[in-house]
Parts: sequence; structure tokens; C-alpha cells
Amino acid sequence: MNTELQPTSEQGQRFVALAEEHAADFATRADQHDREASFPKENIEALRDSGFLAAPIPEELGGMGVSSYLDLGIGMSRLARGCASTAIAANMHISIVTEMARLWRARDEQRDGAGGLMRAVAAKQVICCGPNTENGTDLQAPMTEAVPDGEGHYVINGRKAFGTLSPVADLLFSSVRIKDGDGYKSHLTIIPASAPGVQVMDNWDALGMRASGSHDVVFTDVRISQGSLLPGAPWNVYNAASAFATTAINYTLIACFLGIAEAARNIALEMAAKPKGPAGKRLADRTQIQHVVGEMEVDLAIARAVLERAGRLADDFYTRHPNAAAAGAGSLELAKEHQAMKYVLQRKAIDIVDKAMTISGGAGYMSKHPLSRLYRDVRAGPFMQPLGAYEVLDFAGRVTLGIEPPLER
Amino acid sequence: MNTELQPTSEQGQRFVALAEEHAADFATRADQHDREASFPKENIEALRDSGFLAAPIPEELGGMGVSSYLDLGIGMSRLARGCASTAIAANMHISIVTEMARLWRARDEQRDGAGGLMRAVAAKQVICCGPNTENGTDLQAPMTEAVPDGEGHYVINGRKAFGTLSPVADLLFSSVRIKDGDGYKSHLTIIPASAPGVQVMDNWDALGMRASGSHDVVFTDVRISQGSLLPGAPWNVYNAASAFATTAINYTLIACFLGIAEAARNIALEMAAKPKGPAGKRLADRTQIQHVVGEMEVDLAIARAVLERAGRLADDFYTRHPNAAAAGAGSLELAKEHQAMKYVLQRKAIDIVDKAMTISGGAGYMSKHPLSRLYRDVRAGPFMQPLGAYEVLDFAGRVTLGIEPPLER
Amino acid sequence: MNTELQPTSEQGQRFVALAEEHAADFATRADQHDREASFPKENIEALRDSGFLAAPIPEELGGMGVSSYLDLGIGMSRLARGCASTAIAANMHISIVTEMARLWRARDEQRDGAGGLMRAVAAKQVICCGPNTENGTDLQAPMTEAVPDGEGHYVINGRKAFGTLSPVADLLFSSVRIKDGDGYKSHLTIIPASAPGVQVMDNWDALGMRASGSHDVVFTDVRISQGSLLPGAPWNVYNAASAFATTAINYTLIACFLGIAEAARNIALEMAAKPKGPAGKRLADRTQIQHVVGEMEVDLAIARAVLERAGRLADDFYTRHPNAAAAGAGSLELAKEHQAMKYVLQRKAIDIVDKAMTISGGAGYMSKHPLSRLYRDVRAGPFMQPLGAYEVLDFAGRVTLGIEPPLER
Amino acid sequence: MNTELQPTSEQGQRFVALAEEHAADFATRADQHDREASFPKENIEALRDSGFLAAPIPEELGGMGVSSYLDLGIGMSRLARGCASTAIAANMHISIVTEMARLWRARDEQRDGAGGLMRAVAAKQVICCGPNTENGTDLQAPMTEAVPDGEGHYVINGRKAFGTLSPVADLLFSSVRIKDGDGYKSHLTIIPASAPGVQVMDNWDALGMRASGSHDVVFTDVRISQGSLLPGAPWNVYNAASAFATTAINYTLIACFLGIAEAARNIALEMAAKPKGPAGKRLADRTQIQHVVGEMEVDLAIARAVLERAGRLADDFYTRHPNAAAAGAGSLELAKEHQAMKYVLQRKAIDIVDKAMTISGGAGYMSKHPLSRLYRDVRAGPFMQPLGAYEVLDFAGRVTLGIEPPLER
Repeated sequence: MNTELQPTSEQGQRFVALAEEHAADFATRADQHDREASFPKENIEALRDSGFLAAPIPEELGGMGVSSYLDLGIGMSRLARGCASTAIAANMHISIVTEMARLWRARDEQRDGAGGLMRAVAAKQVICCGPNTENGTDLQAPMTEAVPDGEGHYVINGRKAFGTLSPVADLLFSSVRIKDGDGYKSHLTIIPASAPGVQVMDNWDALGMRASGSHDVVFTDVRISQGSLLPGAPWNVYNAASAFATTAINYTLIACFLGIAEAARNIALEMAAKPKGPAGKRLADRTQIQHVVGEMEVDLAIARAVLERAGRLADDFYTRHPNAAAAGAGSLELAKEHQAMKYVLQRKAIDIVDKAMTISGGAGYMSKHPLSRLYRDVRAGPFMQPLGAYEVLDFAGRVTLGIEPPLER
Repeated sequence: MNTELQPTSEQGQRFVALAEEHAADFATRADQHDREASFPKENIEALRDSGFLAAPIPEELGGMGVSSYLDLGIGMSRLARGCASTAIAANMHISIVTEMARLWRARDEQRDGAGGLMRAVAAKQVICCGPNTENGTDLQAPMTEAVPDGEGHYVINGRKAFGTLSPVADLLFSSVRIKDGDGYKSHLTIIPASAPGVQVMDNWDALGMRASGSHDVVFTDVRISQGSLLPGAPWNVYNAASAFATTAINYTLIACFLGIAEAARNIALEMAAKPKGPAGKRLADRTQIQHVVGEMEVDLAIARAVLERAGRLADDFYTRHPNAAAAGAGSLELAKEHQAMKYVLQRKAIDIVDKAMTISGGAGYMSKHPLSRLYRDVRAGPFMQPLGAYEVLDFAGRVTLGIEPPLER
Repeated sequence: MNTELQPTSEQGQRFVALAEEHAADFATRADQHDREASFPKENIEALRDSGFLAAPIPEELGGMGVSSYLDLGIGMSRLARGCASTAIAANMHISIVTEMARLWRARDEQRDGAGGLMRAVAAKQVICCGPNTENGTDLQAPMTEAVPDGEGHYVINGRKAFGTLSPVADLLFSSVRIKDGDGYKSHLTIIPASAPGVQVMDNWDALGMRASGSHDVVFTDVRISQGSLLPGAPWNVYNAASAFATTAINYTLIACFLGIAEAARNIALEMAAKPKGPAGKRLADRTQIQHVVGEMEVDLAIARAVLERAGRLADDFYTRHPNAAAAGAGSLELAKEHQAMKYVLQRKAIDIVDKAMTISGGAGYMSKHPLSRLYRDVRAGPFMQPLGAYEVLDFAGRVTLGIEPPLER
Repeated sequence: MNTELQPTSEQGQRFVALAEEHAADFATRADQHDREASFPKENIEALRDSGFLAAPIPEELGGMGVSSYLDLGIGMSRLARGCASTAIAANMHISIVTEMARLWRARDEQRDGAGGLMRAVAAKQVICCGPNTENGTDLQAPMTEAVPDGEGHYVINGRKAFGTLSPVADLLFSSVRIKDGDGYKSHLTIIPASAPGVQVMDNWDALGMRASGSHDVVFTDVRISQGSLLPGAPWNVYNAASAFATTAINYTLIACFLGIAEAARNIALEMAAKPKGPAGKRLADRTQIQHVVGEMEVDLAIARAVLERAGRLADDFYTRHPNAAAAGAGSLELAKEHQAMKYVLQRKAIDIVDKAMTISGGAGYMSKHPLSRLYRDVRAGPFMQPLGAYEVLDFAGRVTLGIEPPLER
């Protein structure tokens, strides 16, 4: 009996199978890219060439037609088993394209733009990236600013952090603030990576996810046309509309961390089953190791369950509510469930890797051992946006109690 | 957006709606039955009269035709919101009838017997009960013994504990051991509650679940015919066949404890929203209370997710594998997932009630307050069979590592 | 090797030995008082007659001269092993007398009053009680009000909850608010229990601590003289002075819950070591039970360690700083350590009782089993003042970060 | 009010002050040594020159005379705040010398040898190291074997792992097994690092503790005299004598991990208090960050409390019981308390660093940030001997229940 998560659609099955194929390949290079902190350009090219990067795109636009968030999440978790850095890098693109596909299916006013972009992606001409985080502020309050130049263009200055996938991006979907009366509005812009003034800093050197190319991206007097500006939203506010916009789009990112946990667990099980040292004993035969494996399995059961349930809820919700206005306060309820899922899954993923490390004995602590990489990679989880891990409980409580604003900052 | 668990079939929807109706009624008497430790006979009659007790029975046999374990579990969780004692009492019957329905659908050799029994249940003539626990031994190793009298009958002596629903039972499905060579076999028997020598001890007086009528049931020289003896199984062994036989049948029991948690949570939210004391402050407005509510919601998200996933896995598994032999070792894998679910859900249910108590301030600690009942009821959870809570991690570890036997005792 | 907590002074050793004697006696009646919710008047009389109630009083005033908070706490934990209700009832008196002794040693301006009171206690003439909690407000913000009658007296109206020990109290140390300009000041008053208008409501009926006599105490037009009014403090503020005043005084109360945990643990160990049921198996021989016992021991090691360390810190701190002004902000640091201790100890005590319940199997769930009483008693812990369990983490964080006020409400 | 752990003797105070001085110095080089995985030879030399490495040696033999395990542990925790790798390297030597001092004070038969060694250490001529761990076996069952050559010498072959401090060691205290009838005995030997056949492999490359020089040490036909063989003990047995021999000697090692946690906590507090990013917000002003800080403080309170209590218990125990025979089964009780302490402290240290990472935001995840080093260093904790973290609960349970052998393997 296979108790791994299973996709719910035929398209999903194809996507998951493809993810597993890529993962097997990427796993062979994961340690080296980690050691060298080198960007696995060849992996992204393979994903582009196989059509993986076009997975969420409707079949009529040339994609794989995977429309279920759950199925997309499962596929991304499988990919992350091979190389977590590659998975979160690929996810930067996948989540943007998933959102394009949603707009297209929802017959949103941005449908045409989204359609065009997806055709380009399906034709393997474009890779998207969304560097949006900035140091010392929240996702909803970008300090990067776009100023009208009086001639119909905007000039952008600012610095983004954690620009995962930036080394190979063609288009940058970055948030800016624009003066609006006494305050600001927040806008997403589409900036060609080749535009003058765009600089990918090549400065990513971190504890984990070292091959993800999460460099800073600096904008110095970058000029964009009005047409590159997507519709605005309130600045420095996290509300139902923010929840609608950010919940589903982050689902596949969180799913990657399940894959890390599963990879660590599989390594640990393999180690436990092998005779070890000159005495030739198997760890699997120790009752205490059996106990730790049991803890790991229970954590895994939780992680899989919350990811599956959140995926089903999202699939149902976004199908019923094609846009934020129609979704209303329900968006906050969905966000609550997804943030709870994230909170739980990221912690359980860390726990699972930790237990795998325990099972490994000192071996997993060695630099050359893949567990030492997974231990570093998995800790990136709690930093994932849109809410910090430390904000989730308050947010969940406030939404449940109907306190406004839903998030205290 | 409703994030409660939702049934997957039309029959399930009717069942859940009926459960909610009954729960609203039972809630009005729950505290009194708890205080008096009285058996809510009127509740069981209402469940019988409404057809609730025939829910798992195929429509062609006169039942509601709810065949999904998940849907049955959701319904039982709703019922438990009103009165947990009634729910676990009703569940004793429901789980036996669910198993009859499975045998019938699986075209098992016991199909005819099962069919007859179900018709009688649907006709409101029979209530089933399964007193099987015994003090100082495990479910797989009954010490209650049936001895052939040499004239084609068996004579049973022994004492069962936790005979929930026994005050109104017509048929007792109890396990016995029978000499088999040098050892024993374990058999389920069907014993009329009215048979000479059957004594329901009326001695249930416990911390919680006080209205569940979980009396000891004593068998003194009870004679049964060979026909009342179901096929035997190894004695004192927990193996794949035991797992097949006990996993699904216990699903609805565990589900009841979600209902307790949900009831406690709802009470706490209501209390937090009300102005309190002469100063008229709302607890909901304190950031720390919001935080505790957030913790409660996250725990609830976990509890619901693991219950849903285990239900889907069971629905899938028992559909694919109509009998234990065909299921093979997969039964242990399924049991692992269900035991992990039980382990998590029971602990989270306890945590949720505990946090509801915290939110209530001293009020919930008063005898007259429903939370003080829920606090006592929910602690019954970890005792639920077939495995003790303290056995789950070892079991999960051993199954995962392929260690035999799957359970160390 | 005895790893129980050990007193640090000779006086403490005598006190602890006396506590153990009383505990052995009280244990024989604890279940009955619990069942009947009757107040164990004979226990309090025994404690008075043996000199136990005069333990903190200096030897020159006729007491046992136990001046170490740690030693007092250890003694109270031993007493609670026998009957937790009696222990927290006795503690109401002990903690007030401990504070009197501190004032006397600190040569505070209230020294003479404190001395006189202690002599009366040592002469077995007076039992003190401090009903101060009120529903819907915090300890620092009593709504019970004292209004000057213009003739040099004050008239008090209000209602106190959780008036533990009130059935036998001679003097009530209760907080009131008094108008002070546009606001209020908070004062402790000394009210004879026999004063007209004082009513002990005989209404305590709770989940646990059922024999503690924690009735509501109602004040209706109770007149007190100005001399019965102790010096005022800011109303509705928790600051360094509040911390100084409430930290040490609550130490012995928290210590009682260690005793509950130790009693539960001892019962569980005894049960595990006994052959059980017709099969005569010992739970102690199961590896999983050994594991649960190990968890219980680790929790106990934590509980004892934090109680010991907090006691030593208090002993050191109050010796160095005889009054609040001299102590300054250090009082908040000490309060942080003590609140952290409380947070940990109360949770670990609950966990230990829960694990003892697990080890007991169903037996501990029966009403007649002492574990079912301990399970209910121990849950009172997180309600203990001055801060709610849900406030501790925020308080600790704010004190550490130097945020004012130290407690957000 | 200073709530750090405080030494109990004057010698301890001097030692702790010296540790703080060294820590401040070592902190300036810790990141570089970590990055380069270089051994901080200059640090060890500084520790030798200042007399730090002679701390446990009686004053009459030329040392600092710190005889309290608690005080030694506090000093090591302070040292680890600056550079954890240096601290655990220094501890290899310190713990051996501490044991020499114990033997000397206990007037053991090895007193003279111990005294001579300590004089040499005090004269800064000798650094000791104890490479004893081997892959695939337990500490009590070395596979490294010493075979008599028939001419009064022994020939040693085997491979030790985790030979912390080996780059600068003069003497290696390594365990070997020697045939004894049909079985083996386990002996500690003293091997000059310069002896022919001793090879320090220079192969330490790990996730954390990268500057600790924990290379493999290989013995190839190393010849030692009979005099270099310390008295034998049963092989592959963990009993009361093993507990006596290994409990105190490991205390200072565990203490180092408190220092890591304290360093991480201090860094996090500093970061929280600083305005951040272009918006200039302080994390300290967010209620959720205050909450996380509170969690960190509670964890720290636990870690300090268990370390202090275990230290006091050890100080008391080894004073009362100068040798293993006199200590009897009490050694297992003490070992239980120390293993429980280790289990708790190592986990809390990990939790504290994790929370510090959370507070840091993404900043702490960068390679150049000291938190990313502490995150890797602290994970070494659960691997520390003599028992694996996964063995502690079973061991504690079995000792408590009186099950033999005390450890199931």
C-alpha cells in the first residue's frame, strides 16, 4: 500500500511522474551544487525542455493542463526530493504561471496578458521570477518605489532579497509602491531582467538552499511603461484581498519542504536497514531506533495530511470563487487553513530531518552526507512568505475571533 | 468558508445532517446524564427510531447506505459534539453494523448472516454491542474462554470490561479463546444479551464518558451453539489479518473525539467573545488569548486533516481489497496510518480541550460548566483500542522497518 | 540515591519531615473529601496543632523558623502528595504568614503588626486567608471597592472568588480599590471573617481541588477601620513593585503541584510493578511502558529542577533586597524566572499525571482510583495567579526586551 | 538581577571569569575557523598558557583547584559562548584531568599516576585527548583491540572516530578490548600521540563544530607497555560501574551546549533591539516577536535549571561516594538524572538556536552570520556520549523500574 500523496487528475499523474524522473536526475548533482553554491542551470533547462515549467498552463495554450493546486503541490514535493534548491527555484516560475492560469480560467480582465505570457512559456521562451521580499519590511509593504517620470513611464529604485531563480529569469514580477495621495499603493510590475538598471547581485551564500540562486536583485533607475504595471492594492495592509492573492500562489512552495522531509526519511530508513561497522549490527533492530522511526512516521503522516487537506480546500475554494471580491472574507478563512498548514508542515519537516539525523548516528553530521544538506535546506521553511512562522498563531486566532485587522504588526 | 470536514457522498450528507439534529437534542441532557452517570436510553432510542443506527446498512436492506468510512466518521464526530457518551455508545453498534455491511459488499462467506442481521437492525429490532476488552490482557488475547461441552455447544466463562452500550444491547459480539492443540484460537461469538449467565454489572463509574454505560459484562457458564461462533484467528498475535479486521472498524470511534474537541473549541470561542465580569472586558481582545485561539485552530486543523486522510485511505483500501488475504501486508501499512492518526487526533483533542479550558479562565473548571465534562470525556481517547497509545510509535516504526512481529509486547 | 528535592536548612528538614507525616495521614481521607467535596477541617486543625501552620514564623516568635522559600516549597510539595486540596488550602495561610515573616525580617514599617499577627498564629489563635481573585478582572485590578464613610471608617462591597481555606479562616487579607483623585489605588485590607456583612458562600463545586473550600466570599457593607488598611499601590498596573509583592508569596503555591505529580508518578510505578489480570503480566516488563516511564522521569527532572532553581533565586534575591524599592527592576527579572518556572512546572505536572494515567491503563480512569482525582486536581495549576499561564510568554519576552509595561493586557 | 548560572566556589568564580575572557577573544576568530574548518591551535595554546587547562587540578599540584563539577560546567558553558569548537576541544582535555583529580582526591590506587600527570599538565607540558567513539558500536564495546605480544607488551589495532582535540594532543586515552577467556574486557590505555603507528587522519569535515579537530585516529600495530593499561571493566555492558565512570566526566561536555544557546539568544536579542531596513522598525516592538523571545527565555530557564541541578547532584554524589563500589546502584540513579539533563538541555539548546534564527529573520540564515554557525554547531549535541539521545528515555524508564540490564540494546 502506497501512502504517499497521490494526484487527483490524469494531468497531475503525468506531472508527478515527470517530477520523479527529474528528481532522480537532479539528486546526482545536488551535493555538488550545494557545496559549490552553484546555480543548477542545467536542471532548469531540463525542466523547461521537458515541459515541466509549463505544467500549470492549459492544454489549449500548450501546457500540461495541471489545474489542481494539490496535484501541483505533490509534483513539487516529488521534485524537491531530488534537489530542494532546484525545486524552490523552479517553483518561483511555476507559482507565477499557476496564477496566470487561474486568471485565464477566471476570465479576469488580465486574461489576455496572462494568455500571451503562458504561450511564451509553453514555447520555452520565457522563465518568470518574482523577487519580492525586502529586508526590514513585510511583503505587503514594499519600500522599492516606482515614480512616474511625467512622460508615461515609471522609474524604479530599490533592492529585493531572496531573488530565487534570478540567474536565469527573463521576466521579474516585482512589487513596488507608488505614491497615492498621502499614502501609497502596492503594484506588481513586470520587468525584463535585461532592462537597463536591473542587477542580479550574485551574492547568495547561505546556510542552505545554496543552489537556489537567491541573489539580491537591485533596481537602479529602471524604467518601465505603464502597461507593465498590474492593478494596485492597498500598501502595508494584509487583508482578505491579500489573502486571496497570496494563499494559493504559495501552496506549491510549501509543498517542496515535504519533499525534503521525505528524502531525509528515506535515507534514514536505508541507513537503519544496513549492517554497520565492524560489529555488523543493524540500527533497525534496536527498539529505540524503531521508536524514533515511529515518531518520524507520525510526523510524516501529519505533514502529508495537512498538505493534502489544504490543497483540496484551495482547489474547492478557487473553483467556487474565481476572484477576490466574490471570495470575500472566506479568503481569510482559507488563508488561515493554509498558514496553519505551513506552520505545521515546516515544523514537522524540520523534525523529520532532525530524527533522520538522529537515526544516522554521527554519519549524517558529516559534510559529505546528504542529510547534512537536508538539515540546512529544511530550515529555510519557516522563513517562507507571506506570513512569518511567528505570525501564524496570532493571525489564525484573530481571523477566528473576527478581530480586525486580521494580522497585528 | 466552512472548514469543517465534509462528507463525500449524498448518503453521507444525509447522515451528517441527521447527526447534527440529534446532537442538538442530546446536548440539552448531556450534563445531567454525566452528573448522574445515567445511561441515556432515550438518546439511543431516538437514534434507532430515526434510522441513524442503520446508517451503514445498504439501502436495499433498509438502511441509509452510507458506505464511506470517512462519511461515517464525520457523522459520528458531529454526534459527539452533542454528547460524547452517547456517541461512543452508539458507535459500539455502528461499527459492528459497518463491518457487517463490508462483509456483505465483499461477498464474504458470512454474507448471509450479515445480511440477516442488518435487516433486523434496519427493522429496529436489534442493537449490537461488542464488549471485548479485558483487564490485564490485550484485545488479541482474550482470557474469556469457550469450552466445548461435547454436545455441540460451547460454555463460556469470563469477564469483559468497558462494555459500552451494554445496558440496551440485544446481541453481544464478544471474543473468546478456544483450545486448539497446545494453544488457543481466538473467535468472535454472538451472544444474546438475554442468554442465561450473561450479566451486565451496572458498575460503570469513571472520570468521564459517564453516560456511556460501559459496564463490565460477566459470562458465567453461558452456552452458545456452534453457529454463533465466527471463524477463528490466531490467539495473542497482532498481525496483518488483525490489522485488516480492526482498522476500519475503529475509525468511527476515533472520530468521536474530534467532535469533543470541536465542541470545546466552540464553547471557548463563544466565551471569549462575551464581555465578562463587572469590568465588561472581552477575552477576545487580548493578544495572548488570540494566540491561544490560534494554537487551538492549528491543532484542530491537524486533527481534521489526519482524520480525513485516514478515512480516504480506508475508503480506497477496503474498496480495492475486499478481504484480508487479498490485502496482505498492506493491511499493516493502513493500520500504521490509522494508528498514527489515532495517536495524533487523541492528543490534539486533549490539547484543544485543555486550551479551551485555559481560555475559559476559572469558569470552565466549575462542575456545572460543560468544559469540565469535556475535559474528563476527552481523556478516554488514548485508551481506545486496538493498540494502546503507548504502543503506536513502536508499531509504526516496526511496520516501516519491516520488523516481525509488527508489535512488540 | 534520593533525587527528591532536599531542604537546605535544619529548620527546613524538620518542616519537610512534618509535612510527610501529615501527608501520610491526609492521604487516607483524600478520596472521600474529594468525592463529597467536603472541607477537611480536621486536616487544617492537625496542621495548626502540630505547628505546621507556624512554620515560616521566626523561632523567637514561636514558630519553626523556616525562612528559605525553597525549603517551604519543598515542604508544601510533600504535603500535596497526600492531599492537594488540603495543601493549597494550608498554603493560603502559609504564604500570608511567610510574607509577614519577610516584613519582620526586613524591618519594614509594618514589622510590629506582622510580629503581633505571627505571635497569634504561633499561639494557634488565628488562621489567615487571602481571597483576592475576582471574576472578569486581574489580580492587580480589584473591582471590590472600599468607600470612606466620612467617620474614619471604610465600607467594603464586592465579591471574591476562589476563596480557598475560607471555611476556617479568622482573618481575610483581601484587596480593594479606593478612589484616588480621578483613579484608584489598590489596598490590601485585613477583615475579620466574623465581621458583619462577610459571607462565605459555601458554593465551591469544581472539577478538582474539591476539598479546598474555595468558596466565593461576599462583602456587603463591611466596615473596617483605617488601621486595617495596608499601604496602597497603583491600581490595574503590573509593575516591578507588583512583581516584588507577588513573586515569592506564590512560590509555595506552585510547589504544591509538584507534589501532585510526584504522587501520580509513584502510583503509576507501583501499578507497573504489579502482576495484572488473569494473565499475570507486569506492565513494567513492556519496553513501551519503560519508555513512558522514562518520559515521566524526564518531566519530573525538569519540574524539580526549575522549582529548585527558582527557590534558590528567590532566597538569594529577597535576602539581598529587603524591600521593593531597593530591588528595583530586578523584581521583574525574578518574576520572569518564577513565571517561567510556573509555566513549565504546571505543564509538566499535567503531563506527568497524564502519563501516569496512560501507564495505569483503564484502571486510573475509574472514579474510585486516586489517579482520576489527581488528573482533575492538577488541572487547577495553570489558573494560579498572579499571571495566567497564557500571559507568561509575553511577559517573559517583554521583560527581557525591556518593553514597558512589562505585561500587555 | 543576573540570572545566569553562578559558580559556588571562589575557585569556580576565577575559572568562570577566565573563561569569559578567553571567550571574548575566541569569538573574534570563530567564524573564520568554522569557514576554513581549521583547528584553532592558538586558542588551545592560550588556554594552556593562562592555566585554564589546569583548572580542575588541585592547587597543591599547581592547578586552579576547581573541584565542583557544577563550577567546571559553568566555566565551560561560558567558554562555548565564544567558540563552541574550541570549548568541546578543550573539554576533551578538561574532562580527563577532572577525572584524574577525582581519583587523586578519592585516594584511589591510581592516585600516584594521576598526580604525576596533573603536575605535567599544570607545568603546561601535556595535553590529553580521549578518542573513544568508534563507528557502528557503543562506547562500552570498543572493537579496537589490544593483543599481548608475549613479551610484556600489547599491540593495538583499530580506528577511533570523533577524535576531538587530536591535532594537538600529547596523550591519547583510548579504550581497547582485550581477550579475557571466551570474551573480552574493556581497558583504557594511555598512548603517546607520537608513538609509531598512531595516525591522526586530518579528515574532520562536518556540518558543525568544524574547528574542533575531531579527526579519526587510527592505530596500526601500536605497541604499549602493560603499565599504560588502566584497570579493566566488563566489555559491551553498561552497568552501575559504567555509569559511575562516565557520568561526571561528561558533565562539562554537555554544559558547552548551554553556552551555544546563550550565545544565540544574546545575538537574537541584540538584533531584535536594532532598527532594521529602510523602514527602521524594531522587531522587539512586535508582540509576536516578544512571544518568541518569551519561549526562548522559558527554554533557557529549563536548560539552566537542569544543568545546575545535575551539577549539584554530581557534586554531592561523588563527594559522598569516592569510588564506584561504594556508590553501588546509586550510580545508575545519578546517571539517570544526568542523562535526563542531557536529553533536555540538548533539545532546548537546539530549540533556542532555532528561535534565535526565527527572530533574526532571513539574516541569520546567511553563511556570514554567526547564527548559521551556531545552528550547525548545536546539532552535535544529541550525538554526545555515553548514551545516544534516543536511548535516554528507555534507560531512565528501566533504571526507575529496576529492570536489568539498565539499557536495552
